[in-house]
Amino acid sequence: MSEAVVTVPVARIEGFSSCEVDDVLAVEEPLEFRLDQITISLTMRTPGDDFELAAGFLFAEDLIAGSEDILSISRPADGSPNVVEVRRTPEARVNHSPAKRNFLMTSACGVCGKASLEELEQNACPALAPDNVRVASSMIRRLPERLRAEQAVFQTTGGLHAAALFDFNGELQAVREDVGRHNAVDKLVGAALLNRQTPLSRKILLVSGRASFELVQKALMASIPLMAAVGAPSSLAVATAEKAGMTLIGFLRDDRFNVYSGAGRITVSENHT
Amino acid sequence: MSEAVVTVPVARIEGFSSCEVDDVLAVEEPLEFRLDQITISLTMRTPGDDFELAAGFLFAEDLIAGSEDILSISRPADGSPNVVEVRRTPEARVNHSPAKRNFLMTSACGVCGKASLEELEQNACPALAPDNVRVASSMIRRLPERLRAEQAVFQTTGGLHAAALFDFNGELQAVREDVGRHNAVDKLVGAALLNRQTPLSRKILLVSGRASFELVQKALMASIPLMAAVGAPSSLAVATAEKAGMTLIGFLRDDRFNVYSGAGRITVSENHT
Repeated sequence: MSEAVVTVPVARIEGFSSCEVDDVLAVEEPLEFRLDQITISLTMRTPGDDFELAAGFLFAEDLIAGSEDILSISRPADGSPNVVEVRRTPEARVNHSPAKRNFLMTSACGVCGKASLEELEQNACPALAPDNVRVASSMIRRLPERLRAEQAVFQTTGGLHAAALFDFNGELQAVREDVGRHNAVDKLVGAALLNRQTPLSRKILLVSGRASFELVQKALMASIPLMAAVGAPSSLAVATAEKAGMTLIGFLRDDRFNVYSGAGRITVSENHT
Repeated sequence: MSEAVVTVPVARIEGFSSCEVDDVLAVEEPLEFRLDQITISLTMRTPGDDFELAAGFLFAEDLIAGSEDILSISRPADGSPNVVEVRRTPEARVNHSPAKRNFLMTSACGVCGKASLEELEQNACPALAPDNVRVASSMIRRLPERLRAEQAVFQTTGGLHAAALFDFNGELQAVREDVGRHNAVDKLVGAALLNRQTPLSRKILLVSGRASFELVQKALMASIPLMAAVGAPSSLAVATAEKAGMTLIGFLRDDRFNVYSGAGRITVSENHT
């Protein structure tokens, strides 16, 4: 994770004393996405897992349906570390065309590259297929502790968001961190996609911060039935989860949590599996 | 602030009990910006202060230089609560044209509507003019307490970011809250702009969360010489502040803080003014 953090000298002021100490910062750098040779977006991200980030972003934006739509992911010929180029198969270009939209996308901020309310409404989040998933509340309560154990960079910088996938037994599958919470989720889903593990209909998504509309939307694109946030959800996050049939949990900490939608998937018992 | 929060029923699960309680959520709704009758951007925001948000956003994007460039700010004819229309003077249209860019903007996520690295680099943040500002560390340490006292909605939802302006005596000038931290700053700067108080070269900006590149950039556009964050700064936030001559403070809490750049403006003493 070395490129994800940088050490800088700072003046630490406490009471009436000032001393120079080293501080570890989360790295934030721009990343430009090029799709089929066209620049489509720029996001501020923490370097690392850039190919996964690109794959997850394109998947969340419905510009690819899966790894089978990707011909190649690479750096440009000049080797720039802040550009990722994705080329799609001819079929993918036909089925998932950004040209269907009126403008270039610059998303990664919660609105899926849509510039108007009309476009936002036309692109409703997909509803989940019915399932009979049941998970124990006792397992849910233990998830943040498992994430913290893996969240190495946040511990040192306090500056990164984390997103993690768990299976229904509460086993940690993957963790990704980023200065942008949307990027952390894109990296996580992109990694699963490149490993041909999507759809994620048998997984739980845990995010270290708040649950916004955009994160719920990204989880729904990946068919994740259960999402939990350590922080608060927004009104639109709850409404979107409710409409799509997703279980949304908030304030998962201090051995308790709130269920905002889809409570039927949670069983309150001592059963650990 | 009634439209900023909504009460929903939730299942609160603690230990092996589940009970239904009411929870207060921060409202998140899309807002579409129209500039001179063209839709230019969509942001997810907490309703309230929408005209200030629009003004602050346009100012941060360099699409207006001040309130004198604004002919009108209004809702559309159909009264939609999630659309704001801004019309500029003919002079402003000439001097601050989005047509100078190659694409429509959909920003509010830290990259000022720029879709490529080249554009990001071409639009460097403005450097601050030299000043002889000196503020006491003892005053800085008291700012978060003053913000918390005013931050009513966050207290109930845990779901809002806050941004506040202080004068150099530590007196609170204004506070704005939003689900998006960039929106909180845009609302704050937009309010100052509409009140003809810009540039804010004699003000301190305090943000309740982390300091990202985009927030430093917005502060620099408003000529704010000193910015403090309760949370961690990112590497690019520090580099940008350093380059522009801005004082950037992070981890301002528990009666101490770190100075990442521009330490010359901070005096460590018991002097309260």
